[in-house]
Amino acid sequence: MNELPNSLCAEVETLLGGRFSRANAVRDQHAGAGMHFPALPPQAVATVESLEEIVAVVRACAAHNVAIVPYGAGTSLECHVGAPRGGVSVDISSMKRVLRVSPEDQDCTVEAGLTRVALNEHLRHTGLFFPVDPGADATIGGMASTRASGTTTLRYGGMRENVLALTVVTADGRVIRTARRARKSAAGYDLTHLFVGSEGTLGIIADVTLKLHPTPEAASAAVCAFASSHGATSTVIEAVQAGLPLARAEYLDVEAMRAVNRAFAGTYVESDTLFLEFHGSPDEVTSHAERAREIARGNGGGDFRFAVESEARSELWKARHNAGLAAIGLRPGARPWSTDVCVPISQLPICIDETKADIATLPFPAVVLGHIGDGNFHVVLLLDPASAEEREAAQRFNDSLVARAIALDGTCTGEHGIGLGKRQSLRQELGGAVDLMIDIKQALDPRGIMNPEKIFPSRAGHY
Amino acid sequence: MNELPNSLCAEVETLLGGRFSRANAVRDQHAGAGMHFPALPPQAVATVESLEEIVAVVRACAAHNVAIVPYGAGTSLECHVGAPRGGVSVDISSMKRVLRVSPEDQDCTVEAGLTRVALNEHLRHTGLFFPVDPGADATIGGMASTRASGTTTLRYGGMRENVLALTVVTADGRVIRTARRARKSAAGYDLTHLFVGSEGTLGIIADVTLKLHPTPEAASAAVCAFASSHGATSTVIEAVQAGLPLARAEYLDVEAMRAVNRAFAGTYVESDTLFLEFHGSPDEVTSHAERAREIARGNGGGDFRFAVESEARSELWKARHNAGLAAIGLRPGARPWSTDVCVPISQLPICIDETKADIATLPFPAVVLGHIGDGNFHVVLLLDPASAEEREAAQRFNDSLVARAIALDGTCTGEHGIGLGKRQSLRQELGGAVDLMIDIKQALDPRGIMNPEKIFPSRAGHY
Repeated sequence: MNELPNSLCAEVETLLGGRFSRANAVRDQHAGAGMHFPALPPQAVATVESLEEIVAVVRACAAHNVAIVPYGAGTSLECHVGAPRGGVSVDISSMKRVLRVSPEDQDCTVEAGLTRVALNEHLRHTGLFFPVDPGADATIGGMASTRASGTTTLRYGGMRENVLALTVVTADGRVIRTARRARKSAAGYDLTHLFVGSEGTLGIIADVTLKLHPTPEAASAAVCAFASSHGATSTVIEAVQAGLPLARAEYLDVEAMRAVNRAFAGTYVESDTLFLEFHGSPDEVTSHAERAREIARGNGGGDFRFAVESEARSELWKARHNAGLAAIGLRPGARPWSTDVCVPISQLPICIDETKADIATLPFPAVVLGHIGDGNFHVVLLLDPASAEEREAAQRFNDSLVARAIALDGTCTGEHGIGLGKRQSLRQELGGAVDLMIDIKQALDPRGIMNPEKIFPSRAGHY
Repeated sequence: MNELPNSLCAEVETLLGGRFSRANAVRDQHAGAGMHFPALPPQAVATVESLEEIVAVVRACAAHNVAIVPYGAGTSLECHVGAPRGGVSVDISSMKRVLRVSPEDQDCTVEAGLTRVALNEHLRHTGLFFPVDPGADATIGGMASTRASGTTTLRYGGMRENVLALTVVTADGRVIRTARRARKSAAGYDLTHLFVGSEGTLGIIADVTLKLHPTPEAASAAVCAFASSHGATSTVIEAVQAGLPLARAEYLDVEAMRAVNRAFAGTYVESDTLFLEFHGSPDEVTSHAERAREIARGNGGGDFRFAVESEARSELWKARHNAGLAAIGLRPGARPWSTDVCVPISQLPICIDETKADIATLPFPAVVLGHIGDGNFHVVLLLDPASAEEREAAQRFNDSLVARAIALDGTCTGEHGIGLGKRQSLRQELGGAVDLMIDIKQALDPRGIMNPEKIFPSRAGHY
């Protein structure tokens, strides 16, 4: 890798002063290590505070053919923020202003570095909230970039459904707005959706216009144990068919429930478990939970517990919220690796059954947790990062899980994205369609400087 | 325009036999006349019956640099199916098989030539339905191509929200599948949304995988008169803020109501009128309509009429369903021209007020009807197509309406698309973002043969 050109560094330093850094400590903070990925530090970090600063940094890098890696909260899981080609990490986490909230239109525009928790804090007294919840307190720009979703997707949609428009700095430093603020439009190609999920490979998102939703008047929570994933899945399918507006429908397998009991001295039934949540009027959330109870009973569900009051709801959902932490407790010192397939919900039981059979052969513990209503589940593998054998077993496991999901007409990633880790899986999943994506990448970033190597390997001759 | 090459005609004729035609009558049926657009007949029509035939026709045309114009039901409104560069109209209306319905996954895959009414007929006994309703009985492929929506968008979304995946024949005759059947995916660029709304300029849609929805157990309808659009808009905004799940929220202005009374001997109050529909359980649809009545009353609504029983609901909504026909009755022999702006709902009252002031200056009648819950409304202009003066007045009216909508952060087209008629408006609305669209067009259709001149003028040197 070539050194960064001195003239580039001087130019960006003049612009940003101390917010441009080549210090190892700062570079290491932006290196994207995690899961099974090594640290891939950028050569410098530019912390920008405005759209104009993004433009200036992008133009400077473009003039020198230097790679640009957009950086938000660094919570993504497929090494999206690592810098395999070096270059400059453009950190937008200081851009966190709420630019506008319109209660009548139920939308807002925020700078890309604002996190979802901070946004909801800001909205607290408006009667509105932003529902997309991927777990981590990611930035809105990062969530848009990876097409994030999470536990409430079933009712409210993920980023795909909740981004109305974006301001983007293109690879050559132009500023474009992908759409206006109308709720719908048939005006030309859907650039908004093109940038949502493009993982920083086509430009840097500077601000995001989001749909907001009325804070539900009431909520109810329910937890129900099943002998296997089949009853839980059938319950969700029937509930959706009956028109029950599930806000969340989550699943933990028996191992995950054991891990929770062990980590938190819990008293849950140690069995595959379905977690439900309903949003609506007080009458509705009670009657919907009652209808869910009947459906669960018809599918072999036992121990149906139900709560409306906030604290009791939290108590019921504690296992789901703490499952990740509890899993890590199964093997102190292990490094978690989370898979992310998503299949049509009718294929979920067979996919989970076969995956569990595969888990039984692994030389390390693993738990299954999932957004069952969307057909999306994660296997959290707890491997010893020092063991080549375990790393290989995990890779084999993930490869066959991805192949299984694709064979069931599903996807290699429901919500984590491709990054560096799933580039071959993308080709396996979509075949020749990937060539169209590469054509688009080539058209919008001919120098190949925007987050290179992510989603697809860079073309020879670039950089 | 050059003649079609003989070798191309021979090749396609060998393939399709009598389904390839250069007869004037057939060409004229595919000429895209309507609204203010003249007939622009293709040089030939190829009626295809399979994916393989689409591929063969596209490859033959590509080899000769001959333009291709995809054709479905011909119901689009911005001359999408006209052939300004000649070439071959590829008629997919014979491709109308339902390839698969999965009740558990609430989705289906259909050939692109199936119409929405035929699809719902097919689904009748499944407990599911396809909600997108643009009025005309368009093909599913055409609806995807123009990013159609309609009266139920508020509750169920439009084509943007309901297409899960597409099979597309690219401009060079490759077959790609844009996504698999998982409900969500973070796998690479969102090609599905890129093709939805691309108006046939990037490829031909061969089949469409759609989300389906449970047929509602019950529905209720309500109609309420207001002194102006303000009360109707405020009622919808408050209802949405209160979490009322409006299935439809439509608006007719006083002129439209007069036209309906006149055409159908109706007894409606002649006043700006709001039409609502709710879907849910029998209890829900009644309680939701009752809450809507209170909200309407608080906003000056009078004469609130309400029905649950199917026939009474149809009677209440008759004015809305027949508004287009009634408008035409205002001026027999006139040719209707429908505008299509969409603005943030908070901007709707001012947009409608200013538009009505403008209507008052027109030398011909016009009515306003709209999908008020989405901020999308149409002005149906009834002009004498033989009068240059009226055509110019209509064009000026539409230009200033589009400028007004854009100034209010809205769009020049909520659901009709750009076609030939709104290419300048697109640039006015999105500025430099249009250059990215052109880059994408150039990358995916370098010969410029796919529906040329639509969305943007073709680049010099092509065809």
